Amino acid sequence: MDIETLKAQNPDHWNKAAAIRALSLDAVAAANSGHSGMPIGMADVATVLYEKHLKFDAAHPGWHDRDRFILSAGHGSMLLYSLLYLVGDPEITLDQVKNFRQWGAKTAGHPENFLAQAIETTTGPLGQGIANSVGFAMAEEALRARFGKKLVDHHTYVIAGDGCLMEGVSHEAIGIAGRQELSKLVVFWDNNNITIDGTVALSDRTDQVGRFTAAGWHVQEIDGHNPAEIDAAITAAKADKRPSMIACKTHIALGHAAQDTSKGHGALTNADQNAEAKAIWGWTTGPFEVPGDIKSAWEEIGRRGAADRAEWDVRLAEMSAARQAEFARTMAGEAPKKLSSTIKALKKQISESAPKVATRKSSEMVLEVLNPILPETFGGSADLTGSNNTKTGDLGVFDIDNRKGRYMYWGIREHGMASAMNGMALHGGIRPYGGTFMCFTDYARPAMRLSALMQVPTVYVMTHDSIGLGEDGPTHQPVEHLAISRATPNTLVFRPADTVETAEAWEIAFTQTKTPSVLSLTRQNLPTVRTEHKTKNLTAQGAYVLADAEGKRQAILMATGSEVEIAMAARDILHAEGIGTRVVSMPCWELFEEQDEAYRKRVLPGGPVRVGVEAGIRFGWDRWLFGERGKREKSGFVGMHGFGASAPAETLYEKFGITAEAVAQKARDLVEGRWQADPRT
Amino acid sequence: MDIETLKAQNPDHWNKAAAIRALSLDAVAAANSGHSGMPIGMADVATVLYEKHLKFDAAHPGWHDRDRFILSAGHGSMLLYSLLYLVGDPEITLDQVKNFRQWGAKTAGHPENFLAQAIETTTGPLGQGIANSVGFAMAEEALRARFGKKLVDHHTYVIAGDGCLMEGVSHEAIGIAGRQELSKLVVFWDNNNITIDGTVALSDRTDQVGRFTAAGWHVQEIDGHNPAEIDAAITAAKADKRPSMIACKTHIALGHAAQDTSKGHGALTNADQNAEAKAIWGWTTGPFEVPGDIKSAWEEIGRRGAADRAEWDVRLAEMSAARQAEFARTMAGEAPKKLSSTIKALKKQISESAPKVATRKSSEMVLEVLNPILPETFGGSADLTGSNNTKTGDLGVFDIDNRKGRYMYWGIREHGMASAMNGMALHGGIRPYGGTFMCFTDYARPAMRLSALMQVPTVYVMTHDSIGLGEDGPTHQPVEHLAISRATPNTLVFRPADTVETAEAWEIAFTQTKTPSVLSLTRQNLPTVRTEHKTKNLTAQGAYVLADAEGKRQAILMATGSEVEIAMAARDILHAEGIGTRVVSMPCWELFEEQDEAYRKRVLPGGPVRVGVEAGIRFGWDRWLFGERGKREKSGFVGMHGFGASAPAETLYEKFGITAEAVAQKARDLVEGRWQADPRT
Repeated sequence: MDIETLKAQNPDHWNKAAAIRALSLDAVAAANSGHSGMPIGMADVATVLYEKHLKFDAAHPGWHDRDRFILSAGHGSMLLYSLLYLVGDPEITLDQVKNFRQWGAKTAGHPENFLAQAIETTTGPLGQGIANSVGFAMAEEALRARFGKKLVDHHTYVIAGDGCLMEGVSHEAIGIAGRQELSKLVVFWDNNNITIDGTVALSDRTDQVGRFTAAGWHVQEIDGHNPAEIDAAITAAKADKRPSMIACKTHIALGHAAQDTSKGHGALTNADQNAEAKAIWGWTTGPFEVPGDIKSAWEEIGRRGAADRAEWDVRLAEMSAARQAEFARTMAGEAPKKLSSTIKALKKQISESAPKVATRKSSEMVLEVLNPILPETFGGSADLTGSNNTKTGDLGVFDIDNRKGRYMYWGIREHGMASAMNGMALHGGIRPYGGTFMCFTDYARPAMRLSALMQVPTVYVMTHDSIGLGEDGPTHQPVEHLAISRATPNTLVFRPADTVETAEAWEIAFTQTKTPSVLSLTRQNLPTVRTEHKTKNLTAQGAYVLADAEGKRQAILMATGSEVEIAMAARDILHAEGIGTRVVSMPCWELFEEQDEAYRKRVLPGGPVRVGVEAGIRFGWDRWLFGERGKREKSGFVGMHGFGASAPAETLYEKFGITAEAVAQKARDLVEGRWQADPRT
Repeated sequence: MDIETLKAQNPDHWNKAAAIRALSLDAVAAANSGHSGMPIGMADVATVLYEKHLKFDAAHPGWHDRDRFILSAGHGSMLLYSLLYLVGDPEITLDQVKNFRQWGAKTAGHPENFLAQAIETTTGPLGQGIANSVGFAMAEEALRARFGKKLVDHHTYVIAGDGCLMEGVSHEAIGIAGRQELSKLVVFWDNNNITIDGTVALSDRTDQVGRFTAAGWHVQEIDGHNPAEIDAAITAAKADKRPSMIACKTHIALGHAAQDTSKGHGALTNADQNAEAKAIWGWTTGPFEVPGDIKSAWEEIGRRGAADRAEWDVRLAEMSAARQAEFARTMAGEAPKKLSSTIKALKKQISESAPKVATRKSSEMVLEVLNPILPETFGGSADLTGSNNTKTGDLGVFDIDNRKGRYMYWGIREHGMASAMNGMALHGGIRPYGGTFMCFTDYARPAMRLSALMQVPTVYVMTHDSIGLGEDGPTHQPVEHLAISRATPNTLVFRPADTVETAEAWEIAFTQTKTPSVLSLTRQNLPTVRTEHKTKNLTAQGAYVLADAEGKRQAILMATGSEVEIAMAARDILHAEGIGTRVVSMPCWELFEEQDEAYRKRVLPGGPVRVGVEAGIRFGWDRWLFGERGKREKSGFVGMHGFGASAPAETLYEKFGITAEAVAQKARDLVEGRWQADPRT
């Protein structure tokens, strides 16, 4: 259909959609930056979705039972901002739209979840939105199973572009959704045949219909500018028991000189061409001006769900006070009061029994006592359940016929798992944790960065965290991954030395509301080093004195995780020689950085030589080796200087020189004034 | 078919395959570690492939025109080692097989390309092998187009498991292969229905046949234990003009008590069960013993391609000396002699004309002069060609009807691109480079790590390398990615300050043979700071004095890339105040670390205060801030302390305090004894 026919057939629809188009065009032109074509192309789909289907109440963007709308093609952010302004969202005002992409505005270049409540997730890195949405839909299923349909009963709608569907993570996401029959997930594919480099055919010929069908999805193909087809397709999608993909044939930058071209993907800033486009759309008002009747019609749409929401409020109010409180606590992500006492009791028991176990096993021991008291936890693994020790006895398996199950077999999909976990956390009401090998942090990395950027408390259980995994070799042995995790802002990286520190790490991770955690856990057994029970969470200080020097303090050994045991043995060697040696355990650098200077100096005083010990690379360690007054020639590092190798773990520690004797030797050398100038050691 | 029928129908085949099974079982049992079930399950496919189809000459594993065999399911490494020992590969001896997974052995837990010539690539991180193979097949097409069918005419065969096919990167890889109609790529899917967590159905129900068909592949389904079906399918695959996927229905750990179970995936070490399995296979010799006739039959297979190879040698010898030399140079990855002089001429011209351009544009200027003299380069971008500036005038586009094209539109597939580039580099004869935004290093990360681990000189052109990209906001603004890249062993990370440094960086990158490079390039324009021409490649020293102090040297400003301009401006401010200030440009930390202590001290002498300036996080900078004799209270850092924001670039630099005035203030404070104890700054 041409534009004139579309206008004539349904002028009310056309004008509402034109408002999105005009606002998007104006905002991008004013910013001289952004993406005009996608909002223009998908305005019809978005209009029908908001007008006829999306359950929401614009005045209450945080309503827990709203339908979620995920703009996976996040570069088209003006589509979302236009919609939110038009329906009367209290946070996205006209001023915000006018300040698109400017400092301090909520209307950032790509949607950022922490800037406004109605922005469900942060998109822009392609494929993340569609993968998040799988988590949103899973969270809805899980919470519906837990709290009932009266409180939880909503859909997740997604707009995804060609870029989202080319990214590998989309494959993982649609595989999960198909396997789990997430019937309330509906994805609109903006099938505009345009990428930045040119037509899609330049790089891809995938039959998306065939592909989604193969993944177990319900698939429809429609004209993405025809409101009747859009409406019918959404209705059919909601009725099908499978997740739905609606392939919407659209024209990027419809009606603009750049229509159907890759130029149309970017910022359309030519004033004459923009004026022409508006004329073609029948849009006659000035920049950022929406005629009163059209704005009113949109605001009516914004109020469409108000009654639904009010009824929902009533249903909630009719529940028992305990149930209401539990629902509120769950949705707020607050840890239950019992968490702290449970951890303390476990720590006491562990300090007394002093088991020698791998910290991945320690983690399981902690989860065994925490999962029963935190019904909001949701565990999983990317096909390494038995290795990651993430499944505890009472969880049950999340599946089509068991939505109360709280454990997920994610399959060999680290990226999809991480991204879906982010979606669950963003949805609210779920505290997700998931495992893989530490080395495969690499695969999950784009989503792990977004956990940090989006400020969601996803927990990553990363086991087999060093050459200590042994024979699997360098492809599976992380050496740089602690550095990578620590380099990421707003991320807590825990490398506990024993079960007590592991328990403390979990307590901290499960009380976060805006920060993800990475638990770096061993494959190999470690002794309990915290044999003296302390109720205080020492890991919360980031680093602390585990064992002080006997006699004059001449050396400080700083270590994390599995190397704390080695540092302790080195201390014995040095003490036998009369070299007073302190061992500092440093399970979480980020928390240590947050301590005040006085505490940091108490733990790491100037004077003694310092040796860092970690079965990873040195990168990042200099900050602690030098400290406030430290000097290079009084410090050293024992760790990895490159990739690992395939051999039994003990052999590797020996061959790579990460031993108590090597640590003692390094300290001895420094105390006695021998120092190597090689900056790589 | 049951085992007895299989044995009876084709005893010769059965015994050859049984040799693989028995050796794999023995090696894993001896190592008490590894994966027995996959080699046992895929032994029939591998036997038919090697016996009837694979073009190779066991005595010459480095023959350039061999077919490539990629074990994407790398955990089944004993399949490959068994094959190589059986056919008489000179590097994989019986001793190597017996030392499976031990220190120093070539038979590592997962195949490592640098340990033996016949190990084409490093696999283990799932999905990498199949994605590499796309690059192998592309390299073959490109080299065939360049050197002719007489020298280049071979297939790429892959064994992939369920894990490979669930990983997102497989989606990107098969999309590329389908789009490019890589007809000489044949993938065997080990369809054994087992993952570590249980049956595949636990986590996935994807119709793989439908999925590969949707991606434009030729697909067949066969019984993976029936040699006749395997043979026929390979023949059909080779005849089809599309890439081929052969779904091989197999039984993991066939004949063993653990058959068809996830236990069968891992190490089968129960002696009784192993003995039973051998009895079922009809295998009566002791551990690691292959009956003479069976070994002879395998060695005959190993010699099958000897005549082919000899004929190929003749064809090569008949070519002109120049062509032979060029082929040899290309396959050896040697840079042409003209590289150095071309770079010098460009540098001279740039130092004179002093353009103000973004370093992504600088990079294009360099490639414009290098691509014509390096016919082995192969450029591309993950759908950001115009932004990454990776396409130069003469390259032509690689496509089905233009295999001489040296530029690839990879689509929105950073991971697939990186992994395929690794495959091209591993194949030999191609020097691949590819671009995306620096922030999407995250997406390519698993393959980037493998570039480093596998020792291949892939070049990553990472543009838009800081908040300097402006309005796109924090999802697109790298802050931790320099640290991530620098933390990776065996990786050169270049952050050039201008066009001259960019030219020097490319010269270094294009002369590497065992080390990948990351070029971190700006979106925004930068002035030429190297206005005095030096023939010497200063970037090769990693860091150097760009501008020395006037008067007494009181401060050293260390900067990279876009912040060198800021450091230079800060120097002007400080000089106006009488504070003698040196500016050190540090385009490549790794190369600076390789310099001797004397040079490092000349560049960064003790005494003056030090300020590091980089629009990224501080992580890793302490090494240079403190230096050989440096002290924390005499150093500071001006950079990012968290994620960025969406706004124009100039605003962001101002708001985040990365300005000449802020740098001057930090230096001034330190010179005058004012210092902040906050370790995060």
